[in-house]
Amino acid sequence: MTYENVIYETSDHLATVTLNRPERLNAWTGEMEKEVRDAMAKADADPNVRVIILTGAGRGFCAGAEMNNLADMSSRKDGPEERSLRVTTKPYDPRVPADYQTQYSYLLGVTKPIIGAINGPVAGMGLAIVLFTDIRFASENAVFTTAFARRGLIAEHGLSWTLPRLVGHSNALDLLMTARKVTAKEAEKMGLVSRVIPQDTFMQEVRAYAKELAALSSPRSTRIIKKQVYEALNLTLAEAIGVANTEMIESLKTDDFKEGVAHFLEKRPPEFTGT
Amino acid sequence: MTYENVIYETSDHLATVTLNRPERLNAWTGEMEKEVRDAMAKADADPNVRVIILTGAGRGFCAGAEMNNLADMSSRKDGPEERSLRVTTKPYDPRVPADYQTQYSYLLGVTKPIIGAINGPVAGMGLAIVLFTDIRFASENAVFTTAFARRGLIAEHGLSWTLPRLVGHSNALDLLMTARKVTAKEAEKMGLVSRVIPQDTFMQEVRAYAKELAALSSPRSTRIIKKQVYEALNLTLAEAIGVANTEMIESLKTDDFKEGVAHFLEKRPPEFTGT
Amino acid sequence: MTYENVIYETSDHLATVTLNRPERLNAWTGEMEKEVRDAMAKADADPNVRVIILTGAGRGFCAGAEMNNLADMSSRKDGPEERSLRVTTKPYDPRVPADYQTQYSYLLGVTKPIIGAINGPVAGMGLAIVLFTDIRFASENAVFTTAFARRGLIAEHGLSWTLPRLVGHSNALDLLMTARKVTAKEAEKMGLVSRVIPQDTFMQEVRAYAKELAALSSPRSTRIIKKQVYEALNLTLAEAIGVANTEMIESLKTDDFKEGVAHFLEKRPPEFTGT
Repeated sequence: MTYENVIYETSDHLATVTLNRPERLNAWTGEMEKEVRDAMAKADADPNVRVIILTGAGRGFCAGAEMNNLADMSSRKDGPEERSLRVTTKPYDPRVPADYQTQYSYLLGVTKPIIGAINGPVAGMGLAIVLFTDIRFASENAVFTTAFARRGLIAEHGLSWTLPRLVGHSNALDLLMTARKVTAKEAEKMGLVSRVIPQDTFMQEVRAYAKELAALSSPRSTRIIKKQVYEALNLTLAEAIGVANTEMIESLKTDDFKEGVAHFLEKRPPEFTGT
Repeated sequence: MTYENVIYETSDHLATVTLNRPERLNAWTGEMEKEVRDAMAKADADPNVRVIILTGAGRGFCAGAEMNNLADMSSRKDGPEERSLRVTTKPYDPRVPADYQTQYSYLLGVTKPIIGAINGPVAGMGLAIVLFTDIRFASENAVFTTAFARRGLIAEHGLSWTLPRLVGHSNALDLLMTARKVTAKEAEKMGLVSRVIPQDTFMQEVRAYAKELAALSSPRSTRIIKKQVYEALNLTLAEAIGVANTEMIESLKTDDFKEGVAHFLEKRPPEFTGT
Repeated sequence: MTYENVIYETSDHLATVTLNRPERLNAWTGEMEKEVRDAMAKADADPNVRVIILTGAGRGFCAGAEMNNLADMSSRKDGPEERSLRVTTKPYDPRVPADYQTQYSYLLGVTKPIIGAINGPVAGMGLAIVLFTDIRFASENAVFTTAFARRGLIAEHGLSWTLPRLVGHSNALDLLMTARKVTAKEAEKMGLVSRVIPQDTFMQEVRAYAKELAALSSPRSTRIIKKQVYEALNLTLAEAIGVANTEMIESLKTDDFKEGVAHFLEKRPPEFTGT
């Protein structure tokens, strides 16, 4: 697949997926959706990639749905064509949790850590999508808005579920009902992002974090942990500990555990193989 | 219904419900309960009202249950009369979620945004009730206490459920087990309120927020979003996205969506009708 | 039972359990597990104890699993001996919720408030265990790390469940996938601890908090509230309010309620009996 709406780069065990329609603040289109999905699958399958970064080209992260598409939908005499909404998901795969099989929540099922690097303004479905990354950093230039309520729309693509779990249901209602603009600082205070970083050093600091994660954590460990955390949101404590005990016994049999102990005792950086 | 314990006012698409027993710091009574419930139903039914504010008259928000009533209960020789506790709810309406049919959680089922304007001290069941508003602001004069553990009582009226979801279960246990007094600043840090506002401009800033919400957000959107967020607390991600996809398709057929796109393209304020 | 790995002390209605292998930063062993469990049961059964403090001797709180044990496991030619992992729990007691019957989550079932006093660095399973205390304070000297991903291990002993509920799932993924070191200040910002306290006055301030809790809150109230809060994490709002209404009616019949009202009206400290 050749990409026209994203840039895909790899180096230092990192894959970087960059939304690339900077003249439109990286507004989201059906083509972009397909390319991001393909790029994520490619990064997931590449044994040299340990961490994935999702960011935007130019001064914005993502303006939300391409306004021309929305305008087109709103002006159809016969109402929107439902097929064009792309709300259906791929056919259900019984081996994958249903939670990971919707249009964008497949990101939770990518087996490698995904870092959202919010380099500038993010709105609407851009926000919904980046909340499916595992950890998010914001440039001080970032501005956040859910946008939907001011377009006559609703909490799309999982925002009704992700926002209350990340920032509590009152902050979620504030953000969703008002659709007001929130600064990077306020987003950090709420818990939408882990850290605000000055624009000058933004991608440099994000990459430093990602490189350390790739270098010092067992890829096997991060894969299991990601699965555990999302799964445990729907489990009781006893169930989550049951999963953890099974995974702990498995992990004790691995090369990465041997290496995890050895590098510590030998006071040297680890050389994990992910096996 | 004539109100003796609350003041009901409307203007600028806002309804303001003011607890009005200032000489008792607006301590809660059975009469106040009935009047607040009636006022909320009236605001919900009024097509001119888009946002509801709940606040207190005088220097407090609500001191909790009227102490004279509690003292009366504690001194009965034959124990409290259970019927007087009013713990039963209205007969179960199968069209309304059970979560919205208890004595105070009906506030979650009010179809318009409710803003809690905590103008001063709030205690006990006053706190339990205001945590059922959607978004809360505190005057710098506000002080918070759960009160119950120092009265020999327990986590009443849903606090065991709302507090952990708003501030995490450790902050909830801190607040509930100690019943200590918490300043507005600490309440904000925990996530009990969205923002602390100086006393001088408190109601002015709350009303500015509410007016913007009423003016710029589609009333249809805020109604659906409120339902989505509370509902999704009990749903899996896949279920919440299923609801969102259905609501998204419906919203694309509405006048408010057409207006939401039109006012944006025409760079003018929206004129939503809620249809 | 004589303790060799912990110190057990009582005074002022407080029991203090101190992890006591300071030369190993209180690294966790099977013996320590047994002694902490015994000490918690003793404190729970002692009618003079109202609040329990868990802390560490010397400059650390707990370094995680004893490294010698881990090294031993990783070097076995025939893989780790599963029985040595102690992942099984005591036989299931049908009168106790399953959530409280795992190796460490029994702490949630202790009927008295447990305060985690994190006096210094805490890592790995030390962190998992202290997140089962009800309220946590950190010395400014404390440093936090989940450790597991850098050992080739996974989110053990309930961290996949506790962390997302305390700090949101993105902070949980950050802490678990990177296993990076987090300062007390950052831990407070995330919500891992309620407050950071200067080292000089650390135990003094923790004890002041605990003494006030023991003196001013009904022991019956704190017992019921602790049960309510953990239980409500798995309940709907309507279910949680059902529990609360039943418990409220019971509490109105108690001596502690009478005393809770009386001391307030008489403006004197309470003398709760817990009945």
